[in-house]
Amino acid sequence: MKARVTIELKPGVLDPQGKAIHHALEVLGFSGVKDARVGKLVTLELDEDDPERARSQVEDMAKKLLANTVIENYRIEIAD
Amino acid sequence: MKARVTIELKPGVLDPQGKAIHHALEVLGFSGVKDARVGKLVTLELDEDDPERARSQVEDMAKKLLANTVIENYRIEIAD
Repeated sequence: MKARVTIELKPGVLDPQGKAIHHALEVLGFSGVKDARVGKLVTLELDEDDPERARSQVEDMAKKLLANTVIENYRIEIAD
Repeated sequence: MKARVTIELKPGVLDPQGKAIHHALEVLGFSGVKDARVGKLVTLELDEDDPERARSQVEDMAKKLLANTVIENYRIEIAD
């Protein structure tokens, strides 16, 4: 069973990597970009076959390791 | 108009960050993880209002800056 954890900075948290991408896009001539933010995507391959148990395990992993919940939001998707 | 670009390493490309996360999860007691891979997510806020034109601009940005197409795949989602 696969799990995808999308981790993004909370709104209002400064995102230097996003700013750098925004600036680089402007330098390359892409003038129509108002904002750029960067997040992480962690794809996990799990032994667990039950979607509910898989979600609860991944929720635990996100809180303990994958996301910094002070400054980041995370979203979990479970797939086969 | 918003665009989300998901950038992931191609299958077979070594992912040291994913390996580190996999190892850290094991150390924390999460034994049911078979594999972990890490990708990037770039969220762009665009001036463009036409979804087709927005997609073609973002396609261009992905090829020129956001993704390294030798080792990475990217996927674009356009939303309001």
